Amino acid sequence: MLIQIKALTELIGQLKKLPGIGPRSAERIAYSILNMTNEEVVALSQTLLDAKEKIVKCPICFSLTDETPCKICQDPFRDNKILCVVENPKDVIALEKAGNFKGKYHVLEGSLSPGKNIGPEDLRIKELLERLDKENYEEIVLALNPSVEGEATAMYLNKLLKPFALKITRIAHGLPIGGELEFADEMTLLYAFEDRKEIK
Amino acid sequence: MLIQIKALTELIGQLKKLPGIGPRSAERIAYSILNMTNEEVVALSQTLLDAKEKIVKCPICFSLTDETPCKICQDPFRDNKILCVVENPKDVIALEKAGNFKGKYHVLEGSLSPGKNIGPEDLRIKELLERLDKENYEEIVLALNPSVEGEATAMYLNKLLKPFALKITRIAHGLPIGGELEFADEMTLLYAFEDRKEIK
Repeated sequence: MLIQIKALTELIGQLKKLPGIGPRSAERIAYSILNMTNEEVVALSQTLLDAKEKIVKCPICFSLTDETPCKICQDPFRDNKILCVVENPKDVIALEKAGNFKGKYHVLEGSLSPGKNIGPEDLRIKELLERLDKENYEEIVLALNPSVEGEATAMYLNKLLKPFALKITRIAHGLPIGGELEFADEMTLLYAFEDRKEIK
Repeated sequence: MLIQIKALTELIGQLKKLPGIGPRSAERIAYSILNMTNEEVVALSQTLLDAKEKIVKCPICFSLTDETPCKICQDPFRDNKILCVVENPKDVIALEKAGNFKGKYHVLEGSLSPGKNIGPEDLRIKELLERLDKENYEEIVLALNPSVEGEATAMYLNKLLKPFALKITRIAHGLPIGGELEFADEMTLLYAFEDRKEIK
């Protein structure tokens, strides 16, 4: 007999929809939720609602924020001559963790992908052009993913932004620090060679 | 600058507490939740509350159920001469999926583990003895995990249940179906040899 505990089947079904959660982990997580206290489950459930309610997109740079505009767009001490273009809000958070970039950001909300039917009009490119018109940037850093889509987007933006007569750069690709050459994939090695620097 | 989006940090923190969810997957899941529609997040959040509220322990066998007593304990067509003792409610669900066992269950809610300070009084052993007194079982199948704790629990129960003068069996251990001998661990092979059967 297949025991049907409807509320459990539904919980597992919902958890399976989350990225990286297969049927087995969904089951494991579901049981761990049943083992929590009522208070813990209420807290978890409330956190989901809170996050969805309080976190919005910054209307200027399209990164995630709980205030409008976001802290970075508001910050008078950030360098407003250099704009870093990224694919996703998490990229902003990753770069801020690294901590060396002091300029502003622009989140495209994706990358060009003919396969997935994502064209320039699906990305925040119009908004990027509007910002370049209004604000006075001298350099645009393309910090896009080293993927086919990221590269295509970088090439497209490079062509599109040429008329603005500003410096367009892209972040370096190469061997990750701590990585080992023998385990690097071919594309990484290819880029690592292409981007090689003279030792002076 | 480390961007502090409090609601996001809290969501990631809550997700990290779930089993098998590391910091990276917690982030990935958090972003996917922010990308859901409001309705989807409300539904997910409600499913958690529903599961916690509706799913209870069966007061007889201690497996999970949404009715009291559970469907198996209630079922007049199940064989009430044979009782299968398992560690956790998920074991009941797994065995029911396999579908060949037609008796009743008893969930211990764990296994003996001196290391984790889990003794007989922390398991549903008292309730098992009460059931053996009241109900009329002829066979007890110990379907415990093939781990040190499971084995210790099986040995303990075997000794404890001897006075009841019933048949005590344990499920077979050996090579899993579809598994390959060369990848089996030593303990599995040891059991597979010990439990070998004559081909007739």
